[in-house]
Amino acid sequence: MYMLQVGINGYGTIGKRVADAVRAQPDMEVVGVAKTRPNFEAEGAVENGYSLYAAIEERAELFDEAGIELAGMVEEMVEEADVVVDACPSGIGADNKSLYEEYDTPALYQGGEDADVADVSFNARANYEEAVDAQHVRVVSCNTTGLSRLIAPLREEYGVEKVRATLVRRGGDPAQTGRGPINDIVPNPVKLPSHHGPDVKTIFPDLAIDTLGLKVPATLMHMHSVNVSLESEPDAEEVRELLEEQSRIFVVPERMDIDGAGKLKEYAMDRGRPRADLWENCLWGESVSMEGNDLYLFQAIHQESDVVPENVDAIRAVTNSADARESIETTNDALEIGF
Amino acid sequence: MYMLQVGINGYGTIGKRVADAVRAQPDMEVVGVAKTRPNFEAEGAVENGYSLYAAIEERAELFDEAGIELAGMVEEMVEEADVVVDACPSGIGADNKSLYEEYDTPALYQGGEDADVADVSFNARANYEEAVDAQHVRVVSCNTTGLSRLIAPLREEYGVEKVRATLVRRGGDPAQTGRGPINDIVPNPVKLPSHHGPDVKTIFPDLAIDTLGLKVPATLMHMHSVNVSLESEPDAEEVRELLEEQSRIFVVPERMDIDGAGKLKEYAMDRGRPRADLWENCLWGESVSMEGNDLYLFQAIHQESDVVPENVDAIRAVTNSADARESIETTNDALEIGF
Repeated sequence: MYMLQVGINGYGTIGKRVADAVRAQPDMEVVGVAKTRPNFEAEGAVENGYSLYAAIEERAELFDEAGIELAGMVEEMVEEADVVVDACPSGIGADNKSLYEEYDTPALYQGGEDADVADVSFNARANYEEAVDAQHVRVVSCNTTGLSRLIAPLREEYGVEKVRATLVRRGGDPAQTGRGPINDIVPNPVKLPSHHGPDVKTIFPDLAIDTLGLKVPATLMHMHSVNVSLESEPDAEEVRELLEEQSRIFVVPERMDIDGAGKLKEYAMDRGRPRADLWENCLWGESVSMEGNDLYLFQAIHQESDVVPENVDAIRAVTNSADARESIETTNDALEIGF
Repeated sequence: MYMLQVGINGYGTIGKRVADAVRAQPDMEVVGVAKTRPNFEAEGAVENGYSLYAAIEERAELFDEAGIELAGMVEEMVEEADVVVDACPSGIGADNKSLYEEYDTPALYQGGEDADVADVSFNARANYEEAVDAQHVRVVSCNTTGLSRLIAPLREEYGVEKVRATLVRRGGDPAQTGRGPINDIVPNPVKLPSHHGPDVKTIFPDLAIDTLGLKVPATLMHMHSVNVSLESEPDAEEVRELLEEQSRIFVVPERMDIDGAGKLKEYAMDRGRPRADLWENCLWGESVSMEGNDLYLFQAIHQESDVVPENVDAIRAVTNSADARESIETTNDALEIGF
């Protein structure tokens, strides 16, 4: 069986997770990872057995000085790869586009990039087919991924009149020690809409959706307070069952007594998840409520990892090596997604 | 002019603020305050010149031991008062009801009590008249007060189809060192609805409202992410102007560059507000948005103080000593409400 050769440009929060997830797949392998400068993550890449490429020529010697062995420059990795996953900080992906075009290598970008960097914005559950054979695909952000996974089955089953969501966002990731707020609740952006609503519309162009964003002093996960006005009036139990059937939605059962993001992460650690990642939307079963045609619920979104399986699926889509069902199943099996 | 004699049972977060606000009024004075045990607040009461009464007979000697002079037992204060404001912790107010009945003294309770403790739940802007001459009145909680002040003018001006609000609640007050969460975002309650929606319906019985509550690691203020589906479609500027006309809504202008609760409190301190209190809803002008008939906005609610002017107004209502307009104006002038 031919193994898809995947290069990963950027080996930070997302890149290192995508690398490990790609390596776990039966049909692909990591041709290399690229990084701009040496740090503990660069050392970790080499220790994990990944070929490390320098992303910026002028800084290549810094790796040498840090005693980290390079396999070459990023251009070589891009040339060798069947697909490149760009996991660079927001905005850098767009700068890298010409490099991928130069070598005619299909590329995936992350949700921090503007939608117009790519031919299609991607969520495996919602629009896998649109990315088949595409050259430039943007895997939408963690929050948009979380909303898309939720909206897709609701649209199919009940029809959606309108989505209204308040996104209570973590101020920074656990390692981002320079970010706030401390002890505050900050409307962000204070001017509506937050970018999330328009971003979800890159996946569902005809969807009516308004989103509000805030930042709070938390680092573990985002929390969504979601209202979906449906086109019909199922009872809450029926909606809950529909959501429980979704492979990337973990409907947290009452009996677990998990009350927030802290216990969710504890649970992920107890289950031996790599980096305590929660690839699934974590949605409180108890919160699923219907008032007339208004559905309400809470879901927590792990900002560092929920896009990881989506990146893996997007690799198969752009190489047309599996259909949606097959890819999602393969990814889920390889990562053991679903509790 | 006869000065209304007001007793205040409970001298904690709310009680001490109500005492100071009553003292600032031209038509009322504090006959005394009652407390269950000596602490820094009890000492402060005496220092501020309030007659201090012991709320529990068996603990009266504790005040003696702490060197704090008592004026007597709470029963004497209740007898002497024209109105008692009960500002005891949630649930204690209901226990105290028989005491107030015994002396036939009209009583105000706080929003932590069940609605059925009182004949009427009260918000000055929304239903002042219903409390006129009532014997037992419950001043609704900080969040319900904040929502009621917002909903009342919107109902009058545009009609309200439905309110949907996510309440991002502070975990505890600044001095409540034992409360959480730390670094978490906790749906609370996870089962819908939160009590706030039904509580707002004690003010507007026929209102359609669904609320969701969360707790975050903040202490300064609550934050409301509000959606109101109106019965008409005014533009955002018109709605904003309506809200700017409300005396207890502070529409934060863009030019102030106030981005969250921290800067709001800083502003209150700079303006010399007692205890840096924010009696008004603090509502971001920039956030006021219309999408079709859907209004969205953010407002911050100071949990420790927004009910204070409402308590003052309720004193006038139960004693039928002023109508709504007159009372609200008097209270606002005395406290210098409105920035």
